[in-house]
Amino acid sequence: MKLKLFLAAFWLLSIPTMAQQKRLFTLDDLMGSNYWNIQPRYLHTEWWGDRLVRLDAESVSLCNNEKGLLKTPQPLFTADDVKPLIGDGTKGKGLSLYYATFPFADKTQALLSTSKSRFLYDWKQKKIVWSATIESGTAVSDFCTASLSEAYTKDWNLFLKTADGTVHQISTDGSREIPYGTSVHRDEFGIHKGTFFSPSGQLLAFYKMDQTMVADYPLVDIYKREAVEAPEKYPMAGMTSHKVYVGIYNPATRKTTWLETGDPTDRYFTNIAWSPDEKSIYIFELPRSQNKAELVAYDVATGRRKSVIYTETNAKYVEPQQPIVFLPWDSSKFIMQSQRDGFNHLYLFDVSGKEVRQVTQGKFVVLNLLGFNEKSKSVIITSTESGDTRNNTYSVDIKSGRRTLLDNGKGVHHASLSAGGKFLFDRWSSPETFRQYALVHTFGNKEAQIIRQDADPWTSFEVPEITGGTLKADDGTTDLYYRMVKPTHFDPGKKYPAVVYVYGGPHARNVEETWNYMARPWEIYMAQKGFLVFVLDNRGSSDRGFEFESATFRHLGDVEMRDQMKGVDFLKSLPYVDSNRLGVHGWSFGGFMTTNLMCTYPDVFKVGVAGGPVIDWKYYEVMYGERYMDTPEENPEGYASSSLLPKAKNLKGHLQIIFGYNDPTCVPQHTLSFVDACVNADVQIDLFTYPGQGHNMMGKSRVHLHDRITRYFEDYLK
Amino acid sequence: MKLKLFLAAFWLLSIPTMAQQKRLFTLDDLMGSNYWNIQPRYLHTEWWGDRLVRLDAESVSLCNNEKGLLKTPQPLFTADDVKPLIGDGTKGKGLSLYYATFPFADKTQALLSTSKSRFLYDWKQKKIVWSATIESGTAVSDFCTASLSEAYTKDWNLFLKTADGTVHQISTDGSREIPYGTSVHRDEFGIHKGTFFSPSGQLLAFYKMDQTMVADYPLVDIYKREAVEAPEKYPMAGMTSHKVYVGIYNPATRKTTWLETGDPTDRYFTNIAWSPDEKSIYIFELPRSQNKAELVAYDVATGRRKSVIYTETNAKYVEPQQPIVFLPWDSSKFIMQSQRDGFNHLYLFDVSGKEVRQVTQGKFVVLNLLGFNEKSKSVIITSTESGDTRNNTYSVDIKSGRRTLLDNGKGVHHASLSAGGKFLFDRWSSPETFRQYALVHTFGNKEAQIIRQDADPWTSFEVPEITGGTLKADDGTTDLYYRMVKPTHFDPGKKYPAVVYVYGGPHARNVEETWNYMARPWEIYMAQKGFLVFVLDNRGSSDRGFEFESATFRHLGDVEMRDQMKGVDFLKSLPYVDSNRLGVHGWSFGGFMTTNLMCTYPDVFKVGVAGGPVIDWKYYEVMYGERYMDTPEENPEGYASSSLLPKAKNLKGHLQIIFGYNDPTCVPQHTLSFVDACVNADVQIDLFTYPGQGHNMMGKSRVHLHDRITRYFEDYLK
Repeated sequence: MKLKLFLAAFWLLSIPTMAQQKRLFTLDDLMGSNYWNIQPRYLHTEWWGDRLVRLDAESVSLCNNEKGLLKTPQPLFTADDVKPLIGDGTKGKGLSLYYATFPFADKTQALLSTSKSRFLYDWKQKKIVWSATIESGTAVSDFCTASLSEAYTKDWNLFLKTADGTVHQISTDGSREIPYGTSVHRDEFGIHKGTFFSPSGQLLAFYKMDQTMVADYPLVDIYKREAVEAPEKYPMAGMTSHKVYVGIYNPATRKTTWLETGDPTDRYFTNIAWSPDEKSIYIFELPRSQNKAELVAYDVATGRRKSVIYTETNAKYVEPQQPIVFLPWDSSKFIMQSQRDGFNHLYLFDVSGKEVRQVTQGKFVVLNLLGFNEKSKSVIITSTESGDTRNNTYSVDIKSGRRTLLDNGKGVHHASLSAGGKFLFDRWSSPETFRQYALVHTFGNKEAQIIRQDADPWTSFEVPEITGGTLKADDGTTDLYYRMVKPTHFDPGKKYPAVVYVYGGPHARNVEETWNYMARPWEIYMAQKGFLVFVLDNRGSSDRGFEFESATFRHLGDVEMRDQMKGVDFLKSLPYVDSNRLGVHGWSFGGFMTTNLMCTYPDVFKVGVAGGPVIDWKYYEVMYGERYMDTPEENPEGYASSSLLPKAKNLKGHLQIIFGYNDPTCVPQHTLSFVDACVNADVQIDLFTYPGQGHNMMGKSRVHLHDRITRYFEDYLK
Repeated sequence: MKLKLFLAAFWLLSIPTMAQQKRLFTLDDLMGSNYWNIQPRYLHTEWWGDRLVRLDAESVSLCNNEKGLLKTPQPLFTADDVKPLIGDGTKGKGLSLYYATFPFADKTQALLSTSKSRFLYDWKQKKIVWSATIESGTAVSDFCTASLSEAYTKDWNLFLKTADGTVHQISTDGSREIPYGTSVHRDEFGIHKGTFFSPSGQLLAFYKMDQTMVADYPLVDIYKREAVEAPEKYPMAGMTSHKVYVGIYNPATRKTTWLETGDPTDRYFTNIAWSPDEKSIYIFELPRSQNKAELVAYDVATGRRKSVIYTETNAKYVEPQQPIVFLPWDSSKFIMQSQRDGFNHLYLFDVSGKEVRQVTQGKFVVLNLLGFNEKSKSVIITSTESGDTRNNTYSVDIKSGRRTLLDNGKGVHHASLSAGGKFLFDRWSSPETFRQYALVHTFGNKEAQIIRQDADPWTSFEVPEITGGTLKADDGTTDLYYRMVKPTHFDPGKKYPAVVYVYGGPHARNVEETWNYMARPWEIYMAQKGFLVFVLDNRGSSDRGFEFESATFRHLGDVEMRDQMKGVDFLKSLPYVDSNRLGVHGWSFGGFMTTNLMCTYPDVFKVGVAGGPVIDWKYYEVMYGERYMDTPEENPEGYASSSLLPKAKNLKGHLQIIFGYNDPTCVPQHTLSFVDACVNADVQIDLFTYPGQGHNMMGKSRVHLHDRITRYFEDYLK
């Protein structure tokens, strides 16, 4: 008897000892301060015309010639060459060659900067040929290399500093209520900035946003001696929205011309594009209903509305996300992106509005228009043609529409096209390849040249098994993609608790054929703690076409949950998953999904952690919210049935909601209203908030958060 | 073997079955909607001169004559007598005889009200002899029975409605920034209202508070369509405070006379008292330092400052909490309360400022001045003379100072003196007596007459053993009082987890010789869950004299914790307490204590729940905070060492902080700053907030809260 016990104890000890020959990850390894220490450094590059320049901390070097890669990179200059020449008093402090750019293909000049100045260094002449001080206290800064001009905002007003150092104050009545030169429409419709230089950089288009009529959401800054209000202009679904104007400033005349759009009430002006001759500006315009998009041409000189070039309508919504792009070799024609045939594709138009042809088509999605190869008259794109969970680059012949796969067709590629269009710098990975950098020829069927192959940095760690797969959606026909992270030291004879990680909303895809199938660091941490983690991209998520993504229209949550429950059925079918210990976690839309799943399937999910959730779409903003839900007045049934407030009473398991105390995206009213509903329903729920944090936790809060989430599942699901 | 197992199972089943012959409490029984169903109704009474009137829902009846109790109460009138006479359109809806008062000893009139009107019903004449409509939308209402006048505030302005129905608008510039007629100085110094009728009711003294210079704490109202700011004027320690003015309105002249106090910056005007002739007003005035109190007489007619009648200084603080009270038989003399000899006592002064004599003295505290017996020239008080944890009523001969115990000297008595001073209506309990109502004669050594003896309502419940006791403070000499609630079905052979419930701050006493030693309902609930609950009144708490309460001066938390740890030593000495499973819970100052104890003794306390805590006294308000801590500038060391922010890193156990999302007392900045400190220290802490709730949870939130607290201890301390 005694011997037997001894043996058992020996085995208990010996198994982990053997396993621990490989390290386990800490959260700090996975997402904290140690993350970069155990990762190979990114290879930083920039294009100089068609020449690829490798950027290191202290030196830059040339990687290729027009035929392809050089055997060894050819040094161009070092930081030490530059520093003695910098006369801005910084002695080169803050100079990082990682941020060098090479704006002129025909000049040996690098654009560099310190904290105080921005300058052009000519490495052949070994001197600084142009410099400008950098304004301090700016909120937005947009530098145009073509004209060496900088547009910037300060105290909500817009300024333009031209190459000669002249500062033009474009607006004077800017305020938090009326900001100039900032992104508008809450970054929807692909908008992420508010200044748009003309191709030559001689003119500047910009947004002005009047939000005096928009309600302030009262966020609070607790870091002052006594807390103060830190309000966010936040138009909620159905409420009064802001008004946007587009101006064009001409530094030569010091005048602003306003586009004559008509009354901007309840209208969206998006995807500003310049014509190559700078005489016209093209804008997609949508009414608040978002059922229609018009591509409108304006006369730059007068601001007059010239013509509606193209109109697209859809009973659900139209969502232009990319400005039109003119053909480099024919300024009378442009490429427009639209998902009007069900998938995002390219269309060739001429400026009169005549549709020349559909350039790409098929049951795949064009993700990016990277640019053109002028010589081959082709457009270079990224698409999902090689697979729903892949991104690959293609060259598309504008005339014939013939597509040529440029990369290896595997995995997910992030490519940057050279200024001349001849090469791609391709960074990619796949479940088999950790990370590879390659030089890709955009024409001529030449094979890609590998620049660097990064080795898996985690070979000394105990990495759990991570697999991908497909299952059928709740409609019985649509393929859905999943990722599964098995517990570290997986034993198929055991029963493990499983946690579904979910996002589920539009504009995102969580399963890709990248290294580890895009597994998030936390999933690996959870695997170490003995959980199986499962991630499924349900209908309503992105990159699968309009029908797939808009299946959720006016009833957010319903189709998404039905699909997620197919994932749960699959989990339950696995002999090593303990069906009685299922949990769910997600953030933002995933927080909505998590809370919804916990309340809708209270007997399935025992533990959930919802982050920054939407609780009731009436508390979400106008642009995104009304696209998918219409207004509360138009769709009362949809708002009522998708609200989680009446579902609070159904909650049985342990649910913790976590939010950024200063979240300007899913404002705290969501979570607090749900807490209130729980209190009124005599239901217990757990809560946490990160002071000073926004919609996503950053820095220390991020590590703390994931420790917190993990502990919650350990406390209640193990 | 099989038989044995069967027997064991039988015993396991049979023991709880026997025990469950008595019911266990639900939280709903203890503090929710069922609370009143299992309690005997309070006996509601009012004085009509020296006659005690019993108030029932539908009838009122006379209980005594001048000799004492009647054998059976004599009916005076019923609601049905009154209702047909009410002509305000309510048909008597909202009429509750529980709220009847009898303002005139010589008239058979009851003051009654509905939602729409207030009226005098003469039950002898069977008619309504006076009535007035009740203003709607008022914030403050103060009705004077002497003059049948009502002072009220509406939209921050003050109004007076005289008996004839005339409305006098006293202020016109009232606003949230400058309210009139409200309580001032954040309800410190015994202030709880802002209007003060003269004895005849012909004049009205009132406060005006200018808080334009005071910072707004940005609380948030989430119940609007989109959340809105619901700010609270909150002057934090060391920051700019408000300015208070005292006006006197005379409806006869329609004029306000302002008291000429001089610059009100950083001054407190408290405890307004009228002279019987209404020619003078007496105010205690303190500088912001609170080291000095002056009793100042003002001329009512002119507002002129007449004289400083009395000055008291103290190196720590002076805290007048009661207005002076004139002798009914000698309007040249008044009683002042002061704790200048170390205990709160009565002093007789004449209006010239001459101190006639100290009326009470001894190592006990006068708690209340109930009034006078004019015939016997005595003052009726409540004091702790019979015991530190008792309250008893005494008659004190003004001349001789001779004190006569009026009640039985046991327990805690809540007494109300008859208008003529002849009788007391005494409601009391002790650990032996659940609740008794008695008629007490204030003169002549007559024995109290029992009106009603309520039987213990919990005989059908399994009530845990609740005991009281004493132990020595950390100074080795001072007696401290504790209460212990043993687990339900206590078994002395077992080891139980124990939870310390703590308040520990000034102005409160938690252990009294009442029924169950004042055990809070939650303690009984915790006992049912198998916890021992322990409550100790440390130094710094109230009713033990100045030295005891002020021992914590400038270092809140230190002495209090040292005393609490004596309680922990005692707990550890008990064989049935598991020293490895100690928890702590407290609210407000007790939340400060809880968090402090968790961080200061991380190896002692495993689990804590802190409610609405102070975390750093610099975030607390000026009046209370600076009394005990001086300003942050004057006492940087005290503020630094009492702050819990640097202690966050020491936290080891499970701590949950809970606060009212709209707490205007301990504002959320406390808790959120501590959460931030925990995040920065990589320490996990749990958090909850009740939307819409203030400093204390009310209604459903209160039950939910205590369920929550209990679960936390069950999750982590069992």
